[in-house]
Amino acid sequence: MAAHPVSPLAPKSYPDLPEIAGVRFATAEAGIKYKNRTDVLLMAFDEGTTAAGVLTRSKCSSAAVDWCRANLPGGVARGLVVNSGNANAFTGAKGKQSVAMTADYAAKALGCSPSEVFLASTGVIGEPLSADKFAGVLDEAATRMAETPWIEPAKAIMTTDTFPKLSGAILEIDGVEVKINGIAKGSGMIAPDMATMLSFVVTDMPIAAPVLQALLARHVDTSFNAITVDSDTSTSDTLLAFATGKAGVEPIQSVDDPRAETFGEALRDVLLDLAIQVVRDGEGATKQVSVHVEGATSDASAFRIAKSIADSPLVKTAIAGEDANWGRVVMAVGKAGEPADRDKLAIRFGDLLVAKDGERAPGYDEAATSAYMKGEELELTVSLGLGEGRATVYTCDLTHGYITINGDYRS
Amino acid sequence: MAAHPVSPLAPKSYPDLPEIAGVRFATAEAGIKYKNRTDVLLMAFDEGTTAAGVLTRSKCSSAAVDWCRANLPGGVARGLVVNSGNANAFTGAKGKQSVAMTADYAAKALGCSPSEVFLASTGVIGEPLSADKFAGVLDEAATRMAETPWIEPAKAIMTTDTFPKLSGAILEIDGVEVKINGIAKGSGMIAPDMATMLSFVVTDMPIAAPVLQALLARHVDTSFNAITVDSDTSTSDTLLAFATGKAGVEPIQSVDDPRAETFGEALRDVLLDLAIQVVRDGEGATKQVSVHVEGATSDASAFRIAKSIADSPLVKTAIAGEDANWGRVVMAVGKAGEPADRDKLAIRFGDLLVAKDGERAPGYDEAATSAYMKGEELELTVSLGLGEGRATVYTCDLTHGYITINGDYRS
Repeated sequence: MAAHPVSPLAPKSYPDLPEIAGVRFATAEAGIKYKNRTDVLLMAFDEGTTAAGVLTRSKCSSAAVDWCRANLPGGVARGLVVNSGNANAFTGAKGKQSVAMTADYAAKALGCSPSEVFLASTGVIGEPLSADKFAGVLDEAATRMAETPWIEPAKAIMTTDTFPKLSGAILEIDGVEVKINGIAKGSGMIAPDMATMLSFVVTDMPIAAPVLQALLARHVDTSFNAITVDSDTSTSDTLLAFATGKAGVEPIQSVDDPRAETFGEALRDVLLDLAIQVVRDGEGATKQVSVHVEGATSDASAFRIAKSIADSPLVKTAIAGEDANWGRVVMAVGKAGEPADRDKLAIRFGDLLVAKDGERAPGYDEAATSAYMKGEELELTVSLGLGEGRATVYTCDLTHGYITINGDYRS
Repeated sequence: MAAHPVSPLAPKSYPDLPEIAGVRFATAEAGIKYKNRTDVLLMAFDEGTTAAGVLTRSKCSSAAVDWCRANLPGGVARGLVVNSGNANAFTGAKGKQSVAMTADYAAKALGCSPSEVFLASTGVIGEPLSADKFAGVLDEAATRMAETPWIEPAKAIMTTDTFPKLSGAILEIDGVEVKINGIAKGSGMIAPDMATMLSFVVTDMPIAAPVLQALLARHVDTSFNAITVDSDTSTSDTLLAFATGKAGVEPIQSVDDPRAETFGEALRDVLLDLAIQVVRDGEGATKQVSVHVEGATSDASAFRIAKSIADSPLVKTAIAGEDANWGRVVMAVGKAGEPADRDKLAIRFGDLLVAKDGERAPGYDEAATSAYMKGEELELTVSLGLGEGRATVYTCDLTHGYITINGDYRS
């Protein structure tokens, strides 16, 4: 299925996510760009399903993103259509028309209103995407909807991904088992300016749409918005959450309900797990890197410094080369434009202190640091010594694989 | 000399810059990092030489940058010492001490005050640089100062550069021939947040330091500050200009002197030529790209959009792959966070209109566009259709060469 070798950071196995009452789906081969693989996902939600979402802030957002933005305030969902291979972005009036027609087809197939159908498209930008591609495909898919296996929708939405991304959580609320399932896709054009590319989360928890929206917005900041592969932000970034309400507990109607906290934590675990999987499938990635910044003047400042480090091509190529080049971390701190005092700066690679008080740490051990760099999961920590602000950004290394994948994506 | 193959964009020949009265120099092998090549430049200026400079805005600036910042307000210069192989950045109190001692050595060798000596260092960050390296070397160099050939200082300051960078201008002011010579180094860690890496410009024009400073600041914005190789900003970026005043015309004492405009234009030509050479020697570069943005709400907004495009790894890898992937240009416009209206956007590759009114241009010719991408110098133009703001940013493509060079720079 994958045009490129599977990421060395791919999981050894995939979680066997359970069915979630009120959610059924089918995938299909529409031949939009890829051959001999599924490229369309149709998902149906029972009546009463609430919806929330976080969409790209790109000024050139795709037609599907515009569609979701228009329908999210309704807060209800009955269907979801996702295709891979064509982003339907920068396709003008044709793209807008295509999106409306696709929602119509799906609404007819599912027996609901078009405004209750959410849409997402991912793939090449600027190629018109004809709604004709979907007409028969959606009707046929609607005849064979199932509740499992969840790996199928995860596969259908892949583009340059080398493995499908799934995550789930089961928690207990009021003595009742509540489930959260999530899938995501994304490998390049990944930057933490918004939710990355596509991710869909469903739960059987009864929860009002505004509460679901608030929890999603809160937890996206430390998950999908805290990852970067290449600092490029997609036109199509879409994270949608759907709650069928079938779990048989009293609904959460307010963020002040103490159960919102419990549910939010589980939601956050699923989002972060999916976000990390996106980084581990970053185009050409051979290492996963967590960049921690502490002691900043604020959390926001810490985040911008962490992002400056995680986005730096020089830091990322050094990591690819297993070179403990902490001088480039200094450079990236310096260019971030945030408050920093060179002479208070300390840097750790894992537990190894490499720099302190603005110079190489006394007792710096090049051999130990180089050995640490050979690991597959690396932790870089920068201590600014200025305040209490802290943040973590997750990224991967920058390798020949990234160049190869992106030098010939369209051809 | 170069550890990596010479850039395919290297010039076929180098200008034979003339002597400039009041300027002499020598280069030497101090063995700081490189073997069998010069790595130290000592330059001497006659009494009466004015100085101006633009330095990195990095919060982690090098000891040499701090030294220059402290001495620039004096506005006079008698000497310049530059070394390659070690940036003396993030070297704490030792670095500060080393810089003061180096200035002392140079002042003794040249017979001037240490505060009249300017310093610049480039190379690895975080390695202590002992001033002992310079003691005998500077004394010896001072015994064999010459006025030419200018290619020698250009070579001595190279690091990962694959060719020396020189540029000059001869202009007539008040019927007298006035000369400007410039050299630069830089190949990676290049971003337009400040003058890039190192560049030194000398002229025999009599010009007051504040006027020289004003002209330098004005013209750096559209030259060194308008280039990017990898979006990474160095800790050591330094652009210094020295004016010996030997040209035998009345000095320029004010920016309102109409001759300041004439001189400034020639200065700008030299700065831009040097800046373009840095891009053409960008690590791994195989293509030079000019990104023009027009129709923005302001020049500053146009610049930020142009930089977003020029910094985008996805745009740069597509160019490396000779892929006319204008959808990635749309993406980079969208992520810039500046005012843009998708449905008014037009994009040209060279003279070829590829997108218009927010979608693929009618009559878009994939074959012609692909053929254009095979060129060595490319022009991308984005028209926003919102206002009169315009800017140009110069960059290169992102290739396997960049990864190779930066994956093992220290080792």
